[in-house]
Amino acid sequence: MTASVFDHPILAGLLGDEEVSSYFTAAAELEALLAFETALAEAEAEEGIITQAAAAAIRERARDFTPDLADLKSGTARDGVVVPALLRQLRQGLGPEAAAALHHGATSQDAIDAAMAMRLMGVSLVIDRRLARLGDRLAQWGIEAGDAEVMAHTRMQAARPTRFRRKLSSWADPLVRCRLRREELTLRAFVLRFGGAVGDRSELGHQADAVADRVAASLGLFPAPGSLHSERDGIVEIGHWLSLVTGALGKFGQDAALALQSEVGELRLEGGGSSSAMAHKQNPVGAEMLVTLARFNATLVSGLHHSLVHENERSGAAWTLEWMLLPQMAMAAGAATRIAEELLENLSLAKS
Amino acid sequence: MTASVFDHPILAGLLGDEEVSSYFTAAAELEALLAFETALAEAEAEEGIITQAAAAAIRERARDFTPDLADLKSGTARDGVVVPALLRQLRQGLGPEAAAALHHGATSQDAIDAAMAMRLMGVSLVIDRRLARLGDRLAQWGIEAGDAEVMAHTRMQAARPTRFRRKLSSWADPLVRCRLRREELTLRAFVLRFGGAVGDRSELGHQADAVADRVAASLGLFPAPGSLHSERDGIVEIGHWLSLVTGALGKFGQDAALALQSEVGELRLEGGGSSSAMAHKQNPVGAEMLVTLARFNATLVSGLHHSLVHENERSGAAWTLEWMLLPQMAMAAGAATRIAEELLENLSLAKS
Amino acid sequence: MTASVFDHPILAGLLGDEEVSSYFTAAAELEALLAFETALAEAEAEEGIITQAAAAAIRERARDFTPDLADLKSGTARDGVVVPALLRQLRQGLGPEAAAALHHGATSQDAIDAAMAMRLMGVSLVIDRRLARLGDRLAQWGIEAGDAEVMAHTRMQAARPTRFRRKLSSWADPLVRCRLRREELTLRAFVLRFGGAVGDRSELGHQADAVADRVAASLGLFPAPGSLHSERDGIVEIGHWLSLVTGALGKFGQDAALALQSEVGELRLEGGGSSSAMAHKQNPVGAEMLVTLARFNATLVSGLHHSLVHENERSGAAWTLEWMLLPQMAMAAGAATRIAEELLENLSLAKS
Amino acid sequence: MTASVFDHPILAGLLGDEEVSSYFTAAAELEALLAFETALAEAEAEEGIITQAAAAAIRERARDFTPDLADLKSGTARDGVVVPALLRQLRQGLGPEAAAALHHGATSQDAIDAAMAMRLMGVSLVIDRRLARLGDRLAQWGIEAGDAEVMAHTRMQAARPTRFRRKLSSWADPLVRCRLRREELTLRAFVLRFGGAVGDRSELGHQADAVADRVAASLGLFPAPGSLHSERDGIVEIGHWLSLVTGALGKFGQDAALALQSEVGELRLEGGGSSSAMAHKQNPVGAEMLVTLARFNATLVSGLHHSLVHENERSGAAWTLEWMLLPQMAMAAGAATRIAEELLENLSLAKS
Repeated sequence: MTASVFDHPILAGLLGDEEVSSYFTAAAELEALLAFETALAEAEAEEGIITQAAAAAIRERARDFTPDLADLKSGTARDGVVVPALLRQLRQGLGPEAAAALHHGATSQDAIDAAMAMRLMGVSLVIDRRLARLGDRLAQWGIEAGDAEVMAHTRMQAARPTRFRRKLSSWADPLVRCRLRREELTLRAFVLRFGGAVGDRSELGHQADAVADRVAASLGLFPAPGSLHSERDGIVEIGHWLSLVTGALGKFGQDAALALQSEVGELRLEGGGSSSAMAHKQNPVGAEMLVTLARFNATLVSGLHHSLVHENERSGAAWTLEWMLLPQMAMAAGAATRIAEELLENLSLAKS
Repeated sequence: MTASVFDHPILAGLLGDEEVSSYFTAAAELEALLAFETALAEAEAEEGIITQAAAAAIRERARDFTPDLADLKSGTARDGVVVPALLRQLRQGLGPEAAAALHHGATSQDAIDAAMAMRLMGVSLVIDRRLARLGDRLAQWGIEAGDAEVMAHTRMQAARPTRFRRKLSSWADPLVRCRLRREELTLRAFVLRFGGAVGDRSELGHQADAVADRVAASLGLFPAPGSLHSERDGIVEIGHWLSLVTGALGKFGQDAALALQSEVGELRLEGGGSSSAMAHKQNPVGAEMLVTLARFNATLVSGLHHSLVHENERSGAAWTLEWMLLPQMAMAAGAATRIAEELLENLSLAKS
Repeated sequence: MTASVFDHPILAGLLGDEEVSSYFTAAAELEALLAFETALAEAEAEEGIITQAAAAAIRERARDFTPDLADLKSGTARDGVVVPALLRQLRQGLGPEAAAALHHGATSQDAIDAAMAMRLMGVSLVIDRRLARLGDRLAQWGIEAGDAEVMAHTRMQAARPTRFRRKLSSWADPLVRCRLRREELTLRAFVLRFGGAVGDRSELGHQADAVADRVAASLGLFPAPGSLHSERDGIVEIGHWLSLVTGALGKFGQDAALALQSEVGELRLEGGGSSSAMAHKQNPVGAEMLVTLARFNATLVSGLHHSLVHENERSGAAWTLEWMLLPQMAMAAGAATRIAEELLENLSLAKS
Repeated sequence: MTASVFDHPILAGLLGDEEVSSYFTAAAELEALLAFETALAEAEAEEGIITQAAAAAIRERARDFTPDLADLKSGTARDGVVVPALLRQLRQGLGPEAAAALHHGATSQDAIDAAMAMRLMGVSLVIDRRLARLGDRLAQWGIEAGDAEVMAHTRMQAARPTRFRRKLSSWADPLVRCRLRREELTLRAFVLRFGGAVGDRSELGHQADAVADRVAASLGLFPAPGSLHSERDGIVEIGHWLSLVTGALGKFGQDAALALQSEVGELRLEGGGSSSAMAHKQNPVGAEMLVTLARFNATLVSGLHHSLVHENERSGAAWTLEWMLLPQMAMAAGAATRIAEELLENLSLAKS
């Protein structure tokens, strides 16, 4: 139940993030999959490929659907994806016409990739808002700090004094650039990857692009010229971005931990962690966790790059590896932004 | 709740492992922590450091203890480890003498490291048994296959025929070596890392080693000459071993997937996965997952090596990174051994 | 002399790239460092900080300079960077005024980072040109292939036929996106990181920004608002980009190797590798190397993300790690683009 | 020429190691390959498979052989391994009988794997000797330090004083365990992997094992029951070991850098690096490089684990990846042990 710290009843207090984790529940995933199937049916009805009645039946079925999770679990164990089992369950509540119309011209990957893109886009916006707040807070602190100086350190040695606000901007500027990068990658990452069985959209003939564009618009995703099933660079970019976020905050955490050292004392911390053995200690737990989360994502991002070697029209091996890495990387970025905000509230410049 | 596939209500069917995951529940963790505190109290009573009455009270308290998980969660968020909050809860049900005796001379890391070692040793035994069964099954198949030949392939090209049992032994032999390696690492990995506040066992004076040896014996761990708090090579070895296991099975999975290709057809698979778009397909999902799990662990093992750079007497940053990686690597090895056993049941040599 | 395949007298034939490696010779590095020192002197003379005579002397000294490599090597062993030793050598040929003016207001990192950015920008342009040619070649093949079909494969199983030009576009499209990404990252990656001793440009007072802008323009780098010494996200982006390039080509290589399998035979290869033991074989060496290079960069990119945790105003540890990874990643991208071009020349669609 | 710091005319002063690099020159590699071919011929002559005259001719040819490096380079570019071109060159100086006898029953991988194992075993002994010296030096320092105390630090905060010799033993003990591990892995890692074309030793029939055992004994490698061509766990173990070495020394380096901080001053350093901008600084360059090298190997070890997914009887892609990673990891361990010895000479406990 709890091999991951992010889902752990106790450790999630330290390393979890409730807002981001809400995107990765099974319920959220099923909701996104149902949204895809509904949007597909509606688009196909608009294009006259299936009847409006079938689309309405599918929409209604999806809205009132209660999944049999145990069956979805065993189906996924067999098929490698949840979609075949989910479709079987959905069809059990549909008449023959709507049952045939459901998922028409689509394949499992169309649904799964759409559901992942929808949720990762949502997460990226959550993190973006936090980066904006963090930038504002650091800028505000810079104004308050005025010309106050701290010792600059190079190669772990005291170098000479510099303005503290210069240090603050070295923490803030990468966050601003991360916000800009999010905009750049949006059109490549948060797209509808729709292709049908082998990625050529051939099931829907000349109407395929029109259907795909309608589905994309309906789900808030960007349209893509082709299926992109086997082109995963836009996915890797999301992981890269998440790791740039945690890396930037890891640098802040490392600097904070160094400045909070007992012998340095350049920063002060309110509300640090207590020790089971030494009552006098105030541990800079948040600062340490920022380093941990940066190294976690720096580790996992490598696996995403390996998943670029995606065999043929669909690689079960490479695709599944994405599912094992990306949600965790998003959680780490969620936790890091949350912790950074808390840490900033509790840090102040020590009076010299 | 479900950022990790291992804890996911649906995906755990594909990539989870119930037996191994039972070692990583919060309940299992708390049970191990309580076992440590009890063993410590008993050892200290035997050595006359605390009273037998205090030890008995602690043992009883631990046995009947119902944790307040929400409080443990918020305590962990503050302190970076669960132990201070857990001790507070335990002490609320103890008289003053036993409350003072609880955790005497120990620090959070002593408890956490012991609880992790106990559970990872258990997991290693589960996996070891499965490796033994896998080796037996492959050997049995080799006997059945006799002198049957398959095409050998080098550099992705057909080379020339070779005996199939030679291929089987290339899958089995690394598993045997992994079993041997488990024995080698046991004395370094599954040890009691006991050191007190700063790892020098100074709180217990000349009785420290005797207490540590008693605790180790009681918990089924091996004694260590010193605390090893900041020496994490034995931990990394576990991760390395888990990744050798998944790597060996990933090679088997890759070979199976290649031999199962429609155009090759050297192996036959019963019960493959079905497709939402192509009814004729039998997908080698298990073989693919073995590759996925191998690459997952090959990715994560890197982070463990980074955690060797463990600052000073205790690094919160490096230590916590272990918690984020090791349980997942164990789960991946659990899933891989489970899937490999299932896959072997369903594979047969195609008739030529 | 040859721990790296890229520099190996024999293996560089397989995995090297002469054009890209020319950017990473010691001579190229020294040339770039001297260009920096010259540009700095000229900018400072323009701003009236040093005399035009001193700048002229420095320019002349740099132009005629013959380095004492053994001394640079031992100096680097002691100082961690080559710049102090290089400056000593340069000053030996300068009068007192010019000697004092050399490197005025700068620090080693200013020079090293500029020299690295200049060369990586050059490499990125080399690779960009090759990506353009690869895209053109794939497009041309698509035109030639017309409506020819190949079998699509999903999850390592034959699925159903699809147009070959669709497969070609799945190889080409990521290359186009990589070209676009290069433009996006240029303004963050190929900048002049100029900051003086502790990154605050304080040595040059109110003239610092004007000097920095002049130096950037002179070296063909983009100006940055501050020093960026400790903000390494723009550096990581280069590595990310290089790994997206090798990853995209690794997918092409993997697909080619699968299609070239003896049992599949969908593609034909001219000029494959020969075997020392089996004369009949034609090994798809180039296709395999594309996979190797993709996995190489997918591995190394992780270390760059770790280097984001850059302590304080300058981390010798994190900074040096970049030097160990980035040039090799650039070499891998060079080799991959070179090999992909060769492979494309030798591949054709098998007649069905 | 110099994409790798280990081969770089300047940076090798900082990060190279002459003794270890001598094992990775092209000359050393060719010498080892010729030793393999000679040993094979002699073993086959002893077994009566080829004539003693042929074996003598091969031995003589190998002894006097001057390679045509340009031809080897272009041959390797085509074939993916040097062996076919090397054999062609060797055969040009042999009569027909010896030419036919050369490499009889062997394949390229037999030669390449043997040559790699021979050299890595040599490197492991070099590093082992250095680990022994480092352990002795740390032990000696511990004796000299007596009961001197330093401040222990946990979670980046001063905790309370502890004996310095305890810290020394936390640096030394992992090195001792690494020496033990070298012995354990020897029988799996430094073996002769001999299998012929497809790894089944079938070319040599019932004499294959006898030949293999003779060759192994002659080259100082351990015999293996089968070819192990496609079982790479013993190779990964070497990389794991090298990364444990650099990780242990990285922890020492990190601790040294922290203790050398201007504000901490618990250790003193003679002969630190100088700065181009701040004359008063003494940079702990060696300590930083130990951290860098640890993170370098922690990064690269991941790629070796990926190479366990070795397709079929020989994977050109996975095999070549080993060549790109292992020599560099060995170099990093060489550099780290060299630097650690130097650093220990220059460190002393500051007088309190």
